[in-house]
Amino acid sequence: MAKLYHVPLSPFCRKVRLVLAEKRIECELVEEKYWEQSPDFLRRNPAGKVPVLKLDDKLLAESTPICEYIEEVYPEPPLMPKSADARFEVRRLVSWFDDKFHSEVTSNLLYERVNKKVMKQGFPDSSNVKAGAKAIKFHLDYMTWLLDQRRWLAGDVMTLADFTAAAHLSSLDYIRDVDWNRSEIVKDWYAKIKSRPAFRGILADQIPGFPQPAHYADLDF
Amino acid sequence: MAKLYHVPLSPFCRKVRLVLAEKRIECELVEEKYWEQSPDFLRRNPAGKVPVLKLDDKLLAESTPICEYIEEVYPEPPLMPKSADARFEVRRLVSWFDDKFHSEVTSNLLYERVNKKVMKQGFPDSSNVKAGAKAIKFHLDYMTWLLDQRRWLAGDVMTLADFTAAAHLSSLDYIRDVDWNRSEIVKDWYAKIKSRPAFRGILADQIPGFPQPAHYADLDF
Repeated sequence: MAKLYHVPLSPFCRKVRLVLAEKRIECELVEEKYWEQSPDFLRRNPAGKVPVLKLDDKLLAESTPICEYIEEVYPEPPLMPKSADARFEVRRLVSWFDDKFHSEVTSNLLYERVNKKVMKQGFPDSSNVKAGAKAIKFHLDYMTWLLDQRRWLAGDVMTLADFTAAAHLSSLDYIRDVDWNRSEIVKDWYAKIKSRPAFRGILADQIPGFPQPAHYADLDF
Repeated sequence: MAKLYHVPLSPFCRKVRLVLAEKRIECELVEEKYWEQSPDFLRRNPAGKVPVLKLDDKLLAESTPICEYIEEVYPEPPLMPKSADARFEVRRLVSWFDDKFHSEVTSNLLYERVNKKVMKQGFPDSSNVKAGAKAIKFHLDYMTWLLDQRRWLAGDVMTLADFTAAAHLSSLDYIRDVDWNRSEIVKDWYAKIKSRPAFRGILADQIPGFPQPAHYADLDF
């Protein structure tokens, strides 16, 4: 069986978990305190990061390359469209969330509030938290603008772009940092993706020291 | 003709320039002071970053998605191998350099020494510069380890992984931050890639306030 070394609230790990679940690839989850940089783990991934996926006896690292690999080897159901233009738009949005959203929002909220505590690196920096809380509004508005023109983020079918965005938002939702009242259209999109069977694992996550809020796993939030 | 909005020493822009040149796609270069966030530029790319490529009347942003798009639409000469395993390794290394190398080395050296001056954001932080100078040693050693087993970084053919690494190293070489004496094998690899016609544009770059060092464009450095 496949094995994923992960951290439950990491959006990069969640992206891979969602893709595996959508493709119905069974996978054992192994929590990895990657910040302790154990020699065993560094042997699996010299970059010292999660996710690391053991799949068909291959060790794979870096979340987007992992997802592209899974898509090529397990094409059904597809999470990438066929045309080069549409594939570009998916990849652009994956980068948007994993790079821009991540540095402006996820790092400032999730890493300040959760990672610092878990990794025993001190207390949240309130100016970062404030910057993150401000930036997420811009991003929700950008998603609203996209979803005003399209059924899903990158076009008319659900793709890796939706899972990437949902991975970040679901982690932030766990710590109550998403204001779902800001945009009806984003809330509807999240309700659709949240109700997929692939999402069940993520909705069952329980993080010690951070009790799951009631609305988090509620499909009618 | 294609048009690339770029900054000369940005490794992300250089990666795209190398891919365009290797594919013999003629391209006009337009310097873009992206940090000034002009409304015109933000209309082209709401992420507010370079590179932005205008190609066949499409506006493309995010360097890796741009390169994957070019590869799909202009497959010759190929910069991605055919098998899923080999493609994964290329993408893993592209992420390695654009993420890990970038945050540990490029940001600490290039951004401290050059970007801060150009963007009028103060002086280099010497602890960051020191951290970057230390980290690049680990990365050169990792490249040595890879190139000990392979002709090129991701395998036996030149790929996007080589251009990505060369994009970062060439920018750092411009500011004399690469110790080519550390590894004969890395130096040989760089000499091979530097002598390709696709590299000529990058070797001709002249940055105001940062005179090009003599060895930078020398193929026999």
